[in-house]
Amino acid sequence: MTQKPYAAHWDIQDLVIQLRQLREQSLAQRQRLHQPPKLPSRKQLSQIIDQLAAALFPNRLGVPGLTDEGVDYFVGHTLETALSHLHKQLALELNFVAEEQGRQLDANGEASVMVASFAARLPEVRILLDTDIQAAYEGDPAARSPDEVLVCYPGIVAILHHRLAHILYQAGAPLVARMIAEIAHSSTGIDIHPGASIGESFFIDHGTGVVIGETAIIGRNVRLYQAVTLGAKRFDKDDNGMLVKGNARHPIVEDNVVIYAGATILGRIVIGQGSTIGGNVWLTHSVPANSHISQAQSSG
Amino acid sequence: MTQKPYAAHWDIQDLVIQLRQLREQSLAQRQRLHQPPKLPSRKQLSQIIDQLAAALFPNRLGVPGLTDEGVDYFVGHTLETALSHLHKQLALELNFVAEEQGRQLDANGEASVMVASFAARLPEVRILLDTDIQAAYEGDPAARSPDEVLVCYPGIVAILHHRLAHILYQAGAPLVARMIAEIAHSSTGIDIHPGASIGESFFIDHGTGVVIGETAIIGRNVRLYQAVTLGAKRFDKDDNGMLVKGNARHPIVEDNVVIYAGATILGRIVIGQGSTIGGNVWLTHSVPANSHISQAQSSG
Amino acid sequence: MTQKPYAAHWDIQDLVIQLRQLREQSLAQRQRLHQPPKLPSRKQLSQIIDQLAAALFPNRLGVPGLTDEGVDYFVGHTLETALSHLHKQLALELNFVAEEQGRQLDANGEASVMVASFAARLPEVRILLDTDIQAAYEGDPAARSPDEVLVCYPGIVAILHHRLAHILYQAGAPLVARMIAEIAHSSTGIDIHPGASIGESFFIDHGTGVVIGETAIIGRNVRLYQAVTLGAKRFDKDDNGMLVKGNARHPIVEDNVVIYAGATILGRIVIGQGSTIGGNVWLTHSVPANSHISQAQSSG
Amino acid sequence: MTQKPYAAHWDIQDLVIQLRQLREQSLAQRQRLHQPPKLPSRKQLSQIIDQLAAALFPNRLGVPGLTDEGVDYFVGHTLETALSHLHKQLALELNFVAEEQGRQLDANGEASVMVASFAARLPEVRILLDTDIQAAYEGDPAARSPDEVLVCYPGIVAILHHRLAHILYQAGAPLVARMIAEIAHSSTGIDIHPGASIGESFFIDHGTGVVIGETAIIGRNVRLYQAVTLGAKRFDKDDNGMLVKGNARHPIVEDNVVIYAGATILGRIVIGQGSTIGGNVWLTHSVPANSHISQAQSSG
Amino acid sequence: MTQKPYAAHWDIQDLVIQLRQLREQSLAQRQRLHQPPKLPSRKQLSQIIDQLAAALFPNRLGVPGLTDEGVDYFVGHTLETALSHLHKQLALELNFVAEEQGRQLDANGEASVMVASFAARLPEVRILLDTDIQAAYEGDPAARSPDEVLVCYPGIVAILHHRLAHILYQAGAPLVARMIAEIAHSSTGIDIHPGASIGESFFIDHGTGVVIGETAIIGRNVRLYQAVTLGAKRFDKDDNGMLVKGNARHPIVEDNVVIYAGATILGRIVIGQGSTIGGNVWLTHSVPANSHISQAQSSG
Amino acid sequence: MTQKPYAAHWDIQDLVIQLRQLREQSLAQRQRLHQPPKLPSRKQLSQIIDQLAAALFPNRLGVPGLTDEGVDYFVGHTLETALSHLHKQLALELNFVAEEQGRQLDANGEASVMVASFAARLPEVRILLDTDIQAAYEGDPAARSPDEVLVCYPGIVAILHHRLAHILYQAGAPLVARMIAEIAHSSTGIDIHPGASIGESFFIDHGTGVVIGETAIIGRNVRLYQAVTLGAKRFDKDDNGMLVKGNARHPIVEDNVVIYAGATILGRIVIGQGSTIGGNVWLTHSVPANSHISQAQSSG
Repeated sequence: MTQKPYAAHWDIQDLVIQLRQLREQSLAQRQRLHQPPKLPSRKQLSQIIDQLAAALFPNRLGVPGLTDEGVDYFVGHTLETALSHLHKQLALELNFVAEEQGRQLDANGEASVMVASFAARLPEVRILLDTDIQAAYEGDPAARSPDEVLVCYPGIVAILHHRLAHILYQAGAPLVARMIAEIAHSSTGIDIHPGASIGESFFIDHGTGVVIGETAIIGRNVRLYQAVTLGAKRFDKDDNGMLVKGNARHPIVEDNVVIYAGATILGRIVIGQGSTIGGNVWLTHSVPANSHISQAQSSG
Repeated sequence: MTQKPYAAHWDIQDLVIQLRQLREQSLAQRQRLHQPPKLPSRKQLSQIIDQLAAALFPNRLGVPGLTDEGVDYFVGHTLETALSHLHKQLALELNFVAEEQGRQLDANGEASVMVASFAARLPEVRILLDTDIQAAYEGDPAARSPDEVLVCYPGIVAILHHRLAHILYQAGAPLVARMIAEIAHSSTGIDIHPGASIGESFFIDHGTGVVIGETAIIGRNVRLYQAVTLGAKRFDKDDNGMLVKGNARHPIVEDNVVIYAGATILGRIVIGQGSTIGGNVWLTHSVPANSHISQAQSSG
Repeated sequence: MTQKPYAAHWDIQDLVIQLRQLREQSLAQRQRLHQPPKLPSRKQLSQIIDQLAAALFPNRLGVPGLTDEGVDYFVGHTLETALSHLHKQLALELNFVAEEQGRQLDANGEASVMVASFAARLPEVRILLDTDIQAAYEGDPAARSPDEVLVCYPGIVAILHHRLAHILYQAGAPLVARMIAEIAHSSTGIDIHPGASIGESFFIDHGTGVVIGETAIIGRNVRLYQAVTLGAKRFDKDDNGMLVKGNARHPIVEDNVVIYAGATILGRIVIGQGSTIGGNVWLTHSVPANSHISQAQSSG
Repeated sequence: MTQKPYAAHWDIQDLVIQLRQLREQSLAQRQRLHQPPKLPSRKQLSQIIDQLAAALFPNRLGVPGLTDEGVDYFVGHTLETALSHLHKQLALELNFVAEEQGRQLDANGEASVMVASFAARLPEVRILLDTDIQAAYEGDPAARSPDEVLVCYPGIVAILHHRLAHILYQAGAPLVARMIAEIAHSSTGIDIHPGASIGESFFIDHGTGVVIGETAIIGRNVRLYQAVTLGAKRFDKDDNGMLVKGNARHPIVEDNVVIYAGATILGRIVIGQGSTIGGNVWLTHSVPANSHISQAQSSG
Repeated sequence: MTQKPYAAHWDIQDLVIQLRQLREQSLAQRQRLHQPPKLPSRKQLSQIIDQLAAALFPNRLGVPGLTDEGVDYFVGHTLETALSHLHKQLALELNFVAEEQGRQLDANGEASVMVASFAARLPEVRILLDTDIQAAYEGDPAARSPDEVLVCYPGIVAILHHRLAHILYQAGAPLVARMIAEIAHSSTGIDIHPGASIGESFFIDHGTGVVIGETAIIGRNVRLYQAVTLGAKRFDKDDNGMLVKGNARHPIVEDNVVIYAGATILGRIVIGQGSTIGGNVWLTHSVPANSHISQAQSSG
Repeated sequence: MTQKPYAAHWDIQDLVIQLRQLREQSLAQRQRLHQPPKLPSRKQLSQIIDQLAAALFPNRLGVPGLTDEGVDYFVGHTLETALSHLHKQLALELNFVAEEQGRQLDANGEASVMVASFAARLPEVRILLDTDIQAAYEGDPAARSPDEVLVCYPGIVAILHHRLAHILYQAGAPLVARMIAEIAHSSTGIDIHPGASIGESFFIDHGTGVVIGETAIIGRNVRLYQAVTLGAKRFDKDDNGMLVKGNARHPIVEDNVVIYAGATILGRIVIGQGSTIGGNVWLTHSVPANSHISQAQSSG
């Protein structure tokens, strides 16, 4: 045999053994005797979000060639499919968490309740997204129609994923929620933690580099540009030096605020309603309503 | 039946009805009695751009195994396919706009004229891209060959999409043009509005976070680094408080300018030829030729 | 025939001829008489990295439904497949470089040696990635488990690609290495040159806009946030005005350093161990161990 | 360039020219000046039949995981999709025939009427297929349940295709009908011309080699085995020596007839009701009701 | 809306209602109140058989590029995958049957036992298939190598499916077994019921139209040609006029028999060892060892 | 871990070892010390034939939407692709045979010569296929146009594969040729050995069960129906009892012969020109020109 004589040197068998030992050590360190249950699948979640988006906007994001007569069947079948698959993914998360905590649970049953309450909020999501699209159309001189906004703007991709992920985060599926957020992050460069609370008519223009933290609260009619950070100033540690997880540490942005590109706003501060925060501003204290904050000028 | 008893709670039928009502309200608010015509497809446009790139650089970006004898057939067939599909997408945009404006038009005929003039400019695009590749090779100490630049550099992906999108923007297909720009934006983090005018030998290094606005004009031999913004300072509103769309509001960057990472340049100002703009600089006024602008230093 | 009468105007034949002439001119300018050999394929490399990731973390990133009994077969087969395909891609790079340099070489043989030494380092990569995952888990208050980190965090995607690419860069395959780095860059917005040297327990949070240069050296237990640049201050030119390629021009970051979002650190400077660099800081000089550098405040 | 030096001998260009000349001669011989319009697509028709089968038997042949709540949406959406695609295929056939005959027609409009009448007969098809399934279940000692029959038996595949194709044949789409019949022929070895008329409760066991001609008429409750031919005895020619097309030339098989494997029945004869035709029988004359025909024995 | 005005006539909603009613009637007639459980999937089974074939003959039917070092990993992973998927399909059959019979069962547990015993017999299948391949090579003057036989001969495809299906039939999964048999039937025109018992060194040449019944028993070193039937002479009915299912009704063919094309052998008769049955012979009685049976000649 | 506890019983490791031993025994019996080289791939060959068919009939079997301007590029690129892939498959066969015979050869070079001579005969194949299509159109009262014949008739699929396979058989690639023949056999039930020589204007109607042997010679304007066999009467053995391979053993059918369904014609006999052989006739002796042979009648 003359094919691939070099292959003899790759030593697959030895590699397989080493990698097995490393996996076992890793499980042992984490005090797990067994393989953990399976995690949800990013690929599945990506399809589920695409299906939900198609069900919410069938004429724009659904299959080509839908007729008036056929659109409701498309919506119904697509929802049914998406919700069934979401159910499976949620059950995976619930099982995973329960196993980590050594709890028993009826993952299918609990996931079913989650899906039902999630589904019931889909019309509300559509209403909110209509306000977001309108805000983008009105806020960008380059936008020619709301339809262009829906199919082109990365800010819409990000907020669509967020509004769906946020409901799941609230419902007790933070891992699935986070995975959905990261799908949008990868595609748009906009990183919104699913825990963030965001009001209607929200618009992010350009968007690359935007970061919005887990406990941020954003009012209605807020507009952000690229590279804006709504972050934490510091991370509190407990008496053992471990990070305290989950406490309120990100800004509150009230209604009708505009934050220009590159602004960095850190900590549990309040940006008063109607304020404008200039580009590249670094802000770590609250500002009252209708403030106009701008950066010191560069030297020339 | 014991499978999915929980499914009974998802209430698909009720959701379908609610979503239909929301769609109808949304159309009514926009004073449309009927479903709008179909929009162009991002997925289709993505394939078209890949085909055009393969036709422009068949040995680098075409199918593996092309022979000298076969390459022209590959180029001809790939062009024919790409242009036919582009024709369909352009006709969709033309129909969409005509319907919004209540106009009649021969969408197929007009799209055909557009495609013909677009096709005629492809050799010019290839020439420009060769200058861009050479600029990247000369401008980055890490680049080892022009071929590496073509297959690796996100800045090349962005300018390739832009040079194609810009022709379509000029030809009267701003929506298709924008969708092509967003394909590059999603993949590279570089957001170039298709309206921007960009000269030969253009190089963006790293690129994530770059934003170049609709009316920006960039000369020859210009180099940008990541997170540079060429944006608008303010958006003018008309007497009704609506944004004025389309007026010149972004910078003019003359030949041989270098702009370092994070610089923010806003408004219809002129960066004189041969200037260097330092990293993180915030600039809202014109500077003469051969200026060197740098940021105030951080405190230590 | 009434179909596509407009098509007659596209003049494919003329386009094909023009594009051929441009290709020939381009080769002539680069003093190549013949088509260069094929380059490695980004699509193939993307699959190879996915396979290697699956072999390193089969229970998390492998196929669903793996059993304890089957996991080693999966790992062995996946490794074998990935390494065989990697072998082909490396041989393409070696042939390409040899042809440019007019050298003869046994590309298959040399690639085989490269793959063997690459394979032998995979267990080390797994160990390093375990430290990275742990660092992310401990460094982010929003992280709930190391498993969530592995499947969600773009910083982990970036470092996984980097640790594999870096070995190939060191082994003499800089093009394949760079292509792997750009796959991660496109997906995460994190741009780590494969030449950069990075110690264990490395964590990038959010990550969009991070740039780490070719000659950067990063110690153990370093944490970066989004939009941090570890770049070059200037590019040296030789007596002919050509860029000097490959010299040390990026920062050295010692152990236990934290660099907050938007900080720009340029040139071959040293950030002493245990230092903290604040958000948006612009730094072009070395700082001693345990420094705390922060930006001047914005005006309000 | 050392790759594929041998390729120089393939002479693609010369082949392309020769093949073009042959195409043009072929069109000229058929007195066509132009390319004919496109024909329907076998691949598309294959998908359409699969969709119609799934709509008729959603729980057996539809997607996995359908719930009671979701099944009607699946059926509606699948029907809508299948009928839209069928509409396109029928319009292709109508255009093709009209162009051959030099006629003008509203292909979309006529195809739409065809689809409407086809759709209206789908419930009837389902009823007939239920009788066919029941007949197979009752007629084969190896069948364990009607569900097994539906998913296993090639005779059911053949009759399902036939019952759909026959409606289209009657409606004036003989080409689409024939293409559907050939899809079943390829998969089952059962060749039923779509013109054949077949009553309820029809069962073909094994089936390979069965041929049923265009003008055959088969009553209710008829059973056939493999390799049965219901064919023409001779083909009539007109005064010019051309075949007369379309006249009745195949057998009439009345109700409750069984025809065993390999029997060959030729010409416009009548097999009286309740008859049994033995294996390998060669029959070219009518037989009265309740006949039992068997072959002469082989010598031993 | 001007698109598809004709679509208004398709009346999807009415169709959906009618089809639902027909489904409900069909279930009611079969005295089922609920949807039956899902059936096994032909598509899944087709993949499983391809995987098992690849595991049995990895160098011939496995993935390209297998190395000596990698082949066992390929075999192990492919087996693991195939057996896991087979387990699911078997559980579907068991559930289906149990539900029809109103029984409770541990389908996963029983399927697991089935798979274990099936797996244990795979080496035996490989040994038998080696004898079949050798028989084909020796029996066909056109065969050039055993490898050609394995990749070309439809008779090998058929016996490979049969030997796997027969084990499952014996193990109590007649539906999955039948579905596997029909996959081979569709691809080869050879219809072997999975219940048939077939000895080593079995060869079918050409094969189209061969039918072998459920209770046939075939010895060692038997050769068949196309269109041979080993069928039942009559079907017994019970006192209620229902077919008696499962009784021995097909021929016994002893060792070293050759049966030429088109021969029809019916009923529970015995073809004595070493016999030759001529082409087109019709045989319904036993013949002793070493018989030579031929057809009466045709007239000329 | 509670998932798949039953999996523990599948004993994959033991199976892998047993299967390895069987593979090694099988190689040893065939006196091969090493794995044989790879065989050609049926899947690849199937794609190659589809591409060649598309190049021969681009308007009928090519991609949809070809324009007059684009068709030659399509043909050229498709040919180039098909011939390159065919080159690889032929080289695999040549290597395989050389290794079996312990010969050295330049497989790439020899395959290249084969492909060149194969390519040069493609126009001849197109001419022959045009005569076949015309013969089918004229010979079947159900055929409405030559285009319908090309896209519908299994006899055309079979002869298209045969005419290509026969050239390769003659050129010294009998394995690739046979694999192509079996692709057609599987799809149509028509089994033509690639060695058979077949004149112009050949038509097989229905076709299932037709078998044409390796050394058959068929003249011009011959028509066959389903289940016709042109086979060998007996296989000669040499002094060692081994089959003599390759000698002339199948019928010669002269011009203008019609052979009806089910006729079996065996041995190196001659069917004189202009003869008609009736259905189910069994014929093992030559017949003079213009004979009319028919079967004895069945008893009634």
